Amino acid sequence: MKLPVEYTDVESAAQRISPFVHRTPVFTSATFDREVGAEVFFKAENLQKVGAFKARGATNAVLQLPDDVPGVVTHSSGNHGQAIAYAAALRDLPAWIVIPRTAPYLKIEAVRSYGAHVVFCDHAERASTAADVAARTGAVLVHPFDDPAVIAGQGTATLELLDQVPGVDTVVAPIGGGGLLSGAATAAAGRPGPISIIGAEPFAVDDAYRSLESGHRQPGVENPVTLADGLLTGIGARPFTILQSLGATVIRVTEAAILEASLFLVDRMKLVVEPSGATPIAAIRAQPERFAGRRVGVILSGGNTDLAWLSRARRADAVSDPTT
Amino acid sequence: MKLPVEYTDVESAAQRISPFVHRTPVFTSATFDREVGAEVFFKAENLQKVGAFKARGATNAVLQLPDDVPGVVTHSSGNHGQAIAYAAALRDLPAWIVIPRTAPYLKIEAVRSYGAHVVFCDHAERASTAADVAARTGAVLVHPFDDPAVIAGQGTATLELLDQVPGVDTVVAPIGGGGLLSGAATAAAGRPGPISIIGAEPFAVDDAYRSLESGHRQPGVENPVTLADGLLTGIGARPFTILQSLGATVIRVTEAAILEASLFLVDRMKLVVEPSGATPIAAIRAQPERFAGRRVGVILSGGNTDLAWLSRARRADAVSDPTT
Repeated sequence: MKLPVEYTDVESAAQRISPFVHRTPVFTSATFDREVGAEVFFKAENLQKVGAFKARGATNAVLQLPDDVPGVVTHSSGNHGQAIAYAAALRDLPAWIVIPRTAPYLKIEAVRSYGAHVVFCDHAERASTAADVAARTGAVLVHPFDDPAVIAGQGTATLELLDQVPGVDTVVAPIGGGGLLSGAATAAAGRPGPISIIGAEPFAVDDAYRSLESGHRQPGVENPVTLADGLLTGIGARPFTILQSLGATVIRVTEAAILEASLFLVDRMKLVVEPSGATPIAAIRAQPERFAGRRVGVILSGGNTDLAWLSRARRADAVSDPTT
Repeated sequence: MKLPVEYTDVESAAQRISPFVHRTPVFTSATFDREVGAEVFFKAENLQKVGAFKARGATNAVLQLPDDVPGVVTHSSGNHGQAIAYAAALRDLPAWIVIPRTAPYLKIEAVRSYGAHVVFCDHAERASTAADVAARTGAVLVHPFDDPAVIAGQGTATLELLDQVPGVDTVVAPIGGGGLLSGAATAAAGRPGPISIIGAEPFAVDDAYRSLESGHRQPGVENPVTLADGLLTGIGARPFTILQSLGATVIRVTEAAILEASLFLVDRMKLVVEPSGATPIAAIRAQPERFAGRRVGVILSGGNTDLAWLSRARRADAVSDPTT
């Protein structure tokens, strides 16, 4: 069966986007390695352009649009929105980013700082507003994850990691729509040796877990409540097909474990990582027996957070503080 | 005049400690470069062992102690304390870290995690308690900054930066006791071309500024109040001699500017940096005309903070938010 994205697509994407994205560093923590009994390598995509791996997929997609395209549009107010704004600016293309009126000021400013047009709407009308913009301007809508060029671009994070750290036999990444994880699976599938691909998903929005367990794509959760605000969407059709075909699995994590993992990143690794990006740490801690003795690559997916969870995390930590 | 530390000492230190410390990465920010009209390169010593450049000086000093030394002692409860604990463990030497009873639990745990003995005392009795431990055990006291081996070790951060980024003509680092900045000046003095050395110091504890302006070492400030809790001590004798001889200058920064700089690091650079480490950013912003068109290296000195300043910073930021 031919998959929607092949290893060579990821290789091409890497070459295409390399002048425009960072080759992010890989960090280790002796403390974490001792704790879980594995060698863990953290790929710091929080230090990527626009603060997240999304710069990779968006850049790969936008660079391949025809010369006469009148612009790009998306209705993601999160990292993909910033990434599209960034990528469009590289080509001097107009970009329209549809954003709910309730979005945080910082996100709006970030999009504007790349020169994109911000189109405000009500939350429920995001998709239709984006469609209106596309109809009116001719701008092309780039989907945040269910797009082969986007998936191939996201796969370059794992491709780089496998180049930077020889012998990695397991890759763990957060899963929401599935662009990052299906890209990882595609990249790993083209390399020698079996490489396990594991998604980290909040219990609160576990449709990817249920989809891969049942073999059928399950609907996303309505109005999920999780700290991992980058993982709210259900798994996309193409990502599901890829992940199922390549044998990926998912570990679910609790909100408390996400908090603790976020705190570990701040306190021990000195990295600002959004809660979504901390889920792989929670996943490894949840099932350490699956990682013992292995060389594990982790994608720290992004760093766009105002750290509002920090005070909650400190309180949670205080509860387990043996001196109190 | 022969200085207490020479360029070759820094080179030797770099070779000696390289197996035990990280070659930390250097980051850039297009946003910051545009803002200040310079090319700025951030050396991320917050990602160093023990979370601060102090690992360099402590390791260089401890590795040079004689074989029969019965141990090491220090009365720093901050980064130097952790660094000594770390360095002693490398040689299987006992370490005693004198810590006030009021120190945060996390700092005590960090010292213990390296296998060091924690000796509790009242705040006012730190030095005498350390002297007692030294007398009782024969342990050697390693001073946090007024020690040639420590200064040479700290200088390796700048040596590395100058290797990593060709053409740097200005180095900015925080100044408290002066170990880091005098090490930077020593490293830079051995390189071709004039390289300006600039310290960043809170107005609240500006003895280094006054010392270098007046040409005489001035007493430190009693009970200073500043967010930059790593910069509370007055400038040491050896650091002063070195900095004066090599023509270093100091820029003073306000607490509000330190807050803003700390927030910039979290929000834009996704790095957890303690307020002391953010002072160089505040310094560049305070006098951008001194940096315009230059290639500026900045030492982000450490990352050991619980981010308690963050909520204050967000409030300060909200005040200047144009949408409110």
